[in-house]
Amino acid sequence: MSERTEISDLGEFGLIEHLTRNVELQNASSLLGVGDDAAVIDHFGKQTVVTTDLLLEGVHFDLMYTPLKHLGYKSVIVNLSDVYAMNATPTQITISLGLSNRISLEALDEFYEGVYAACSHYGVDLVGGDTTTSQKGFVISVTAIGEVIPDRFVKRSTAQKGDLLCVSGDLGAAYIGLLFLEREKKIFLESPGVQPDLEGETYVVGRLLKPEARKDIIDFFAEQEIQPTSMMDVSDGLSSEILHICKQSNLGCVLYEDKIPVAEESRLAAFKFEIDPTTCALSGGEDYELLFTVSQNDYEKISANANISVIGYMTEVGEGSTIITKGGGRHAITAQGWNPLK
Amino acid sequence: MSERTEISDLGEFGLIEHLTRNVELQNASSLLGVGDDAAVIDHFGKQTVVTTDLLLEGVHFDLMYTPLKHLGYKSVIVNLSDVYAMNATPTQITISLGLSNRISLEALDEFYEGVYAACSHYGVDLVGGDTTTSQKGFVISVTAIGEVIPDRFVKRSTAQKGDLLCVSGDLGAAYIGLLFLEREKKIFLESPGVQPDLEGETYVVGRLLKPEARKDIIDFFAEQEIQPTSMMDVSDGLSSEILHICKQSNLGCVLYEDKIPVAEESRLAAFKFEIDPTTCALSGGEDYELLFTVSQNDYEKISANANISVIGYMTEVGEGSTIITKGGGRHAITAQGWNPLK
Repeated sequence: MSERTEISDLGEFGLIEHLTRNVELQNASSLLGVGDDAAVIDHFGKQTVVTTDLLLEGVHFDLMYTPLKHLGYKSVIVNLSDVYAMNATPTQITISLGLSNRISLEALDEFYEGVYAACSHYGVDLVGGDTTTSQKGFVISVTAIGEVIPDRFVKRSTAQKGDLLCVSGDLGAAYIGLLFLEREKKIFLESPGVQPDLEGETYVVGRLLKPEARKDIIDFFAEQEIQPTSMMDVSDGLSSEILHICKQSNLGCVLYEDKIPVAEESRLAAFKFEIDPTTCALSGGEDYELLFTVSQNDYEKISANANISVIGYMTEVGEGSTIITKGGGRHAITAQGWNPLK
Repeated sequence: MSERTEISDLGEFGLIEHLTRNVELQNASSLLGVGDDAAVIDHFGKQTVVTTDLLLEGVHFDLMYTPLKHLGYKSVIVNLSDVYAMNATPTQITISLGLSNRISLEALDEFYEGVYAACSHYGVDLVGGDTTTSQKGFVISVTAIGEVIPDRFVKRSTAQKGDLLCVSGDLGAAYIGLLFLEREKKIFLESPGVQPDLEGETYVVGRLLKPEARKDIIDFFAEQEIQPTSMMDVSDGLSSEILHICKQSNLGCVLYEDKIPVAEESRLAAFKFEIDPTTCALSGGEDYELLFTVSQNDYEKISANANISVIGYMTEVGEGSTIITKGGGRHAITAQGWNPLK
């Protein structure tokens, strides 16, 4: 970047004006956006869904290898993913930022480019936020609001015995992408002259840095009149999420290792690190796929969608939560998902 | 505190369960609360208001003199105040926290005691959030959602020429409370044996540490069928907020210094610091009073409420924004409000 403008030179309101100068509201329900004490949303005849995520530098992202535009995009996506996981359609977001003096206005503009790209792609309006200084590190807090047809929202706790356990897309790629970026960071810190070698790893790195939310799956449910019996997004690894559905629905499950979808790119990349691709899918994180259960009656509809894999089924709680490995072994599923408090 | 439980021992989900074990939802519109990807809210026939605030340790609060229970209470209040400032009624909040390892579970429980006290007092439901680790400092992000009768929400930009400029309660106390606490902190750091001397300053210190939001004023508007023409809450000092209303409404104003409400306790306390109480009201912050304009037709109704002061009136934009001092001098109002980005 050739220019560097200090954010404090604009003041908070100058900054808000700068960042929101090109906002165009896309939803008729967005009655009032940025610039007042609060935004106003009209949700007549729909139910409102709200979710929030806090992303902290050094904990959730490393600015050394995260382009700010991608970070802005991803900050929105992780929240939209939670809205879709309720079988709802996101309509508005708010963004609060804590900015250290390391972040210039130009850098912040890049971040917002990503935010607006995500808003535009998913038809969501940015309607408010809060901007303040941070003594250390970049702090991002996003809240997303969505709407759902009355009583069509899908909880985690309502799976039924015998339901099919399904997941969208493929799993484990973001975790392998992280391993690559961490390796390249280490090499760079030791030998700053060496250029990063991410040749051939664009898929896994892309899945980490620029994830998408599964709007297409929610649209497919609506078109096909499928009402999932339970649903959540996969952000902390498949095992951890399956155990949430089992616990909250008071059920057990059977999961087939050979049904877990892993992309060929992820498989090859995992082998380079000499780790098992299945482990990445079970215990990695940040896939932002949808994990859900449907009635067996929906099997035909579900199996017609190439983006959905049936990976198991729900059982009585007494049967436990079991994975059947490729070799035919039976093991209890254990959560090794990311603990953000460690 | 006699016990200290590390938060990381519970894990994120154990922690959420612990913190929300006593939640009882108070609003019929809260269809689904904490524990899923998102909360679900039913707002049929109302418009939804949403606002968010980010509070960072060292920037917005100092744990050295801020009891955690008060901090929890205040974190909610600052958001509710923004909802009331829209002429709306808050119904739900979400809270996201970034926790450093300095915060024990017992400390966090104190914080939540304050959060729940505020929720209970204002009839608001805690419906979601996100909890994560922070490398440094305590991070608090609150989003509040409220409802308003269709098209009765009040913006900052719709004041009319000739309207009365009004403010609730009294101003400047929180700023003077801050001066006291900062003084006592300095003394304590220099001589740790000395006990803090806040004798007689409970009013100003209380206004800083445990502010309230002006629900009563919104209720009064509804009872009296008053529709303010513009409104915002006073968080950055009266001057700064008046200039927002003038700028956004494209008007000027006349403000009378002798009409600005300052509590007797604040006046006496300001004199101890040899500062002008009016300066505290104009340039201090964190009062969380409501600044609003009403039509002159509402003068009689407004003046019957002892908690409301008429402090001036709106003029053409060309006449500028003027304060008439007690001595009869005329000066342009300038904003010396807090810049959270400096």
